[in-house]
Amino acid sequence: MKRKRTKKNIALSSRKSAAPEDVIPGIIIEDVRPSVDGGKYPVKWIAGDPLTVKADIFKDGHDVIAAAVEYKKKSDKAWQSVPMKFLENDRWSGEFVLAENARYLYRVRAWMDPVASWMKHVEKKCQSEASVKSEVLEGIVLLEEARRLSKGKDRERIATLKGSLKRTSGVSHDVLALIRSPEFQKFLGGHSLRRLESLSAPLELVSDRRRARFGAWYEIFPRSQGKKEGVSATFKDCIKRIPEIRQMGFDVLYLTPIHPIGVTKRKGPNNSLVADKGSPGSPWAIGSKDGGHKAIHPELGTMEDFKNLLKAAQRADIEIALDIAFQCSPDHPYVKEHPEWFFHRPDGTIHYAENPPKKYEDIYPLNFHCEDWRALWEELKSIILFWADKGVKIFRIDNPHTKPLGFWKWLIEETQKVYPESIFFAEAFTRPKIMKFLAKAGFTQSYTYFTWRNEKWELRQYLEELTQTEMKYYYRGNFFANTPDILHEYLQKGGRPAFMIRAILAATLSSSYGIYSGFELCENRAKAPGSEEYLDSEKYQYKVWDWDREGNIKALIAQVNHIRRENPALQDYDNLEFYDTRNEMILAYGKRTPDNANIIVTVVNLDPNHAQEDFVTLPLWKFGIEDWQTYQMRDLLTGEKYYWKGPRNYVRLDPKAVPAHIFLLKK
Amino acid sequence: MKRKRTKKNIALSSRKSAAPEDVIPGIIIEDVRPSVDGGKYPVKWIAGDPLTVKADIFKDGHDVIAAAVEYKKKSDKAWQSVPMKFLENDRWSGEFVLAENARYLYRVRAWMDPVASWMKHVEKKCQSEASVKSEVLEGIVLLEEARRLSKGKDRERIATLKGSLKRTSGVSHDVLALIRSPEFQKFLGGHSLRRLESLSAPLELVSDRRRARFGAWYEIFPRSQGKKEGVSATFKDCIKRIPEIRQMGFDVLYLTPIHPIGVTKRKGPNNSLVADKGSPGSPWAIGSKDGGHKAIHPELGTMEDFKNLLKAAQRADIEIALDIAFQCSPDHPYVKEHPEWFFHRPDGTIHYAENPPKKYEDIYPLNFHCEDWRALWEELKSIILFWADKGVKIFRIDNPHTKPLGFWKWLIEETQKVYPESIFFAEAFTRPKIMKFLAKAGFTQSYTYFTWRNEKWELRQYLEELTQTEMKYYYRGNFFANTPDILHEYLQKGGRPAFMIRAILAATLSSSYGIYSGFELCENRAKAPGSEEYLDSEKYQYKVWDWDREGNIKALIAQVNHIRRENPALQDYDNLEFYDTRNEMILAYGKRTPDNANIIVTVVNLDPNHAQEDFVTLPLWKFGIEDWQTYQMRDLLTGEKYYWKGPRNYVRLDPKAVPAHIFLLKK
Repeated sequence: MKRKRTKKNIALSSRKSAAPEDVIPGIIIEDVRPSVDGGKYPVKWIAGDPLTVKADIFKDGHDVIAAAVEYKKKSDKAWQSVPMKFLENDRWSGEFVLAENARYLYRVRAWMDPVASWMKHVEKKCQSEASVKSEVLEGIVLLEEARRLSKGKDRERIATLKGSLKRTSGVSHDVLALIRSPEFQKFLGGHSLRRLESLSAPLELVSDRRRARFGAWYEIFPRSQGKKEGVSATFKDCIKRIPEIRQMGFDVLYLTPIHPIGVTKRKGPNNSLVADKGSPGSPWAIGSKDGGHKAIHPELGTMEDFKNLLKAAQRADIEIALDIAFQCSPDHPYVKEHPEWFFHRPDGTIHYAENPPKKYEDIYPLNFHCEDWRALWEELKSIILFWADKGVKIFRIDNPHTKPLGFWKWLIEETQKVYPESIFFAEAFTRPKIMKFLAKAGFTQSYTYFTWRNEKWELRQYLEELTQTEMKYYYRGNFFANTPDILHEYLQKGGRPAFMIRAILAATLSSSYGIYSGFELCENRAKAPGSEEYLDSEKYQYKVWDWDREGNIKALIAQVNHIRRENPALQDYDNLEFYDTRNEMILAYGKRTPDNANIIVTVVNLDPNHAQEDFVTLPLWKFGIEDWQTYQMRDLLTGEKYYWKGPRNYVRLDPKAVPAHIFLLKK
Repeated sequence: MKRKRTKKNIALSSRKSAAPEDVIPGIIIEDVRPSVDGGKYPVKWIAGDPLTVKADIFKDGHDVIAAAVEYKKKSDKAWQSVPMKFLENDRWSGEFVLAENARYLYRVRAWMDPVASWMKHVEKKCQSEASVKSEVLEGIVLLEEARRLSKGKDRERIATLKGSLKRTSGVSHDVLALIRSPEFQKFLGGHSLRRLESLSAPLELVSDRRRARFGAWYEIFPRSQGKKEGVSATFKDCIKRIPEIRQMGFDVLYLTPIHPIGVTKRKGPNNSLVADKGSPGSPWAIGSKDGGHKAIHPELGTMEDFKNLLKAAQRADIEIALDIAFQCSPDHPYVKEHPEWFFHRPDGTIHYAENPPKKYEDIYPLNFHCEDWRALWEELKSIILFWADKGVKIFRIDNPHTKPLGFWKWLIEETQKVYPESIFFAEAFTRPKIMKFLAKAGFTQSYTYFTWRNEKWELRQYLEELTQTEMKYYYRGNFFANTPDILHEYLQKGGRPAFMIRAILAATLSSSYGIYSGFELCENRAKAPGSEEYLDSEKYQYKVWDWDREGNIKALIAQVNHIRRENPALQDYDNLEFYDTRNEMILAYGKRTPDNANIIVTVVNLDPNHAQEDFVTLPLWKFGIEDWQTYQMRDLLTGEKYYWKGPRNYVRLDPKAVPAHIFLLKK
């Protein structure tokens, strides 16, 4: 903690020895929250939301202390200040609103208030002593000091108070009356006489726009959005898909990589080593003679077409997200222009990506630690800025955990200096601490283990970790129900009800969720038993889909997304709470706005095969409902209204009909 | 984290741009434990004990990493190093022994091992490919690099390995055989080729002597150790008491202040405002014409007598602790010699201590923030050093929470630079966060809320906070069962069984505990109903005690202290675990040595009035006992042997006989 150099301090430090509080702070400020790893990494918040800062603040003895939260945009010079209030057990709290989508700093300032300390002492002493003459003399000295520090009318007012104090002549009865008077009490909060000022180390915060927390995502392979077999669809075909995607209620349309695809070592259908002539290759094998990460695959269209897609999406209130994979096909222009950015082997070849026995010969990783690393990093940054300039502000980053963790910290900070609205979504499916670290390093959103959490206990345990621990301050889990790489066994085996269950879970457990297209069609054919890969995956083939295929759950998804838009409780991330149920197949949980104006209770049958029944126990006291009261539970999925009474009520859910209730609770 | 400037790094940084890991570390080191508040305050440990340091260590990708704990005495220049082992979930662990009673620093170093990474890759690849020619070429380059970094025989050995590798010609079968050979595997751990070195910020640790954790304390007013009514006893009388105190098994004899006592505003019996002529005054009203904090009260004897007491105690293996109260009577020499060290009022008087309506007119507080604060602080330090020079190494500090918290940090560090063996015991009974902060600031031991924790749930909750949270790393609770200021209602009303219960709890829950003399006599007369003050307190009167008074529990205390000395499990602090019981009056808990060689299970009846019975459930799997096994429970208090079988066994405890079992569990 550093001490502010007030005039008083400067005077002191010009003497031979510093003040003791220059050695060690006179007031201790500890455990300032929110914070991540004690301040090592920025906290994430949403612009427009209030931020409540809490801290332990204390000193020795009985003096009165005061404190304020100070904050500013990182780029600003001047700090703003809001007073903190004492809560209990030496904990203080102050609140302010993060006005902008920007980086902020905040810190806590605390000081001893000699006037308030004096008043508290005198107040107590007047009650046991007839005269407080000596205390009055002390008070006069303090008021004089405060007067000198003040200006204009304040100065006059304090002089008046001083005069009044003098006239009491120390008679306790009179002194008490005076210090309890409104004038004196008002002065208590307004003067600027401070001692032993302490300042906490500043904490950093990223104030993101609302989409960073709330959004329904829809992932597509642009080349599979058309109607002709065996050829690539185009951006024009994608534009035709927009109304339908809008109809389903999605907020973000996320495109797999749109760049030219290499031909060398191109993979064939189902990841086969030999690609036949008509095979389009993996969109993640980026780069060909047609260009690299700043180019568009000619089969998809032109930059003009892409801009049209952006516009069409914007008109439909849908935002486009791009998939950014920092790796190259052997045909990427970088390979010739910047061979120094790749890993070279003593035999003269360039290292392809591999994790034996797996080989990705169609992909060359970049050497982020190469000698010319700074030029490489700058070039990669220029790719992000290139697309941001075109109007893309959401970047889904492919495999960030295979690149240096510090690179992301740098890249995201650099980008957000120019485009604070940019959102980075980490596609890392790796060990927990690395996933957490990527979020600490700056990723706005993160993929999660959600697809692999299917049982009641593990859903509850995982969600509590995400939303009820320090993780909530830096890690925003975006719950994808499937991805081009993950078709979970639960979906493979559970049929249509399983898709409904997982969509509802994703959409109501997290404020950000997504599906990879085909999910709404209940596509569940795996490449092989035990594999999570799709059969005939779009990753390696042109595909044509019947978007109205029988058995689809588009209506349900549209409804769920509608419910999410209508109910602010579902737009918040860390407001999740679980409710007790006894049946291991029934999961119950809720989300509420802080004022309880919007209370959503979701009850899901996790069993896709059988109807299940149970009693759900709700914590009515939290909702402001008495145990004897009847309250309405309107199922927003079916429209049915139930009238519940007391905390414990019966539910029965049949997956053949609707496997869940999404209740709006009305008092 | 800072990066070590190896030759390689210097070479890099002499180029235009630094390496990327100079910007952000290439390997992340997080959550290094033990630590207090993320490293803000030192951890406390005991010299001679092993310290296990754990950390999360990870990087992007699949490289093999290695790590070491580095440590040194703070005053040393060179760091020592022990390798860390991978545990699971990116957590690593390394252990070393803190050889000395000193301040230490420790940190974690991690690096990427390119040779091990290469071997891991080749090992995998050889199993799916017939030839790994290119990998062999890479290996040769690495071995050559490693060879250049090594010396003497190592250099030759590596050259030989390199030759062998070359001769494989890349045939997978041969390469696999070679890298699995003992020579190659040995090299894996021994070479010094490292990349991407990261270093964690150093953490500080105070390695105290064993007495800082384990000891039974006995507190006395030296002037009340004699046999003559109405006059002061002397140090000579105290010497006569030593054999008896030794007999009871105490390790520390703690004396209330031994300095001259002021006469101005001296308090009379029971804290009355007027002291009659024979009243000795409060020993905490320090200073008179006979001297201040470096002087001895003439009634107690001379410095020679004090030294004799020290010697007598030492012969009995008892250590003397002094009570240090940094405050002055109005007659203290400082008041005249250094009036600038006190609080002056505008009316010319000096502030006495007060907290209205309480007044302590016999005591002047010191102004730790006065202009001449540095001279004051130095003088106070000289008091500690004065007594340390005389041979006192344990200081019980009176009311530290009314002095600047930073002062203690400074004082303790300064003292321990000269006398690392010095122990500071904080007598703070105040708000939780201030008590914790004093421990963080450096106090070796702390008073606790133990006297006010009498019910089962609160004992368990409080002890779990003390011994199972981060507090265990910095806060060592010394459990006093009573103090001259605290005679708890439980003792006032519970009679002899209450004293037995509380002594056994204190002595078996914490490794450090104490009683204020009179406790062993079951002295329980309070000043008034509802007061925790003793009637006719020694604080204001000469007292003569009959140390063999009927109903005393000296034999029990001697036995409990004997049990503590015999059983190392009771000498450890944070090894406490509670066992399930259903009866709210039966508390069961245990302490074990890490190797389970010494297992102590204590079962206490908290009800001083009635016999209570219950079943105690023990976690046998932790003790290495199968559920079907019979094991011996020898009650160390009564000598009785019980044979228990299975985890759940019956106990019945009658407070009229012995209110507790202290079992030694034998397999």
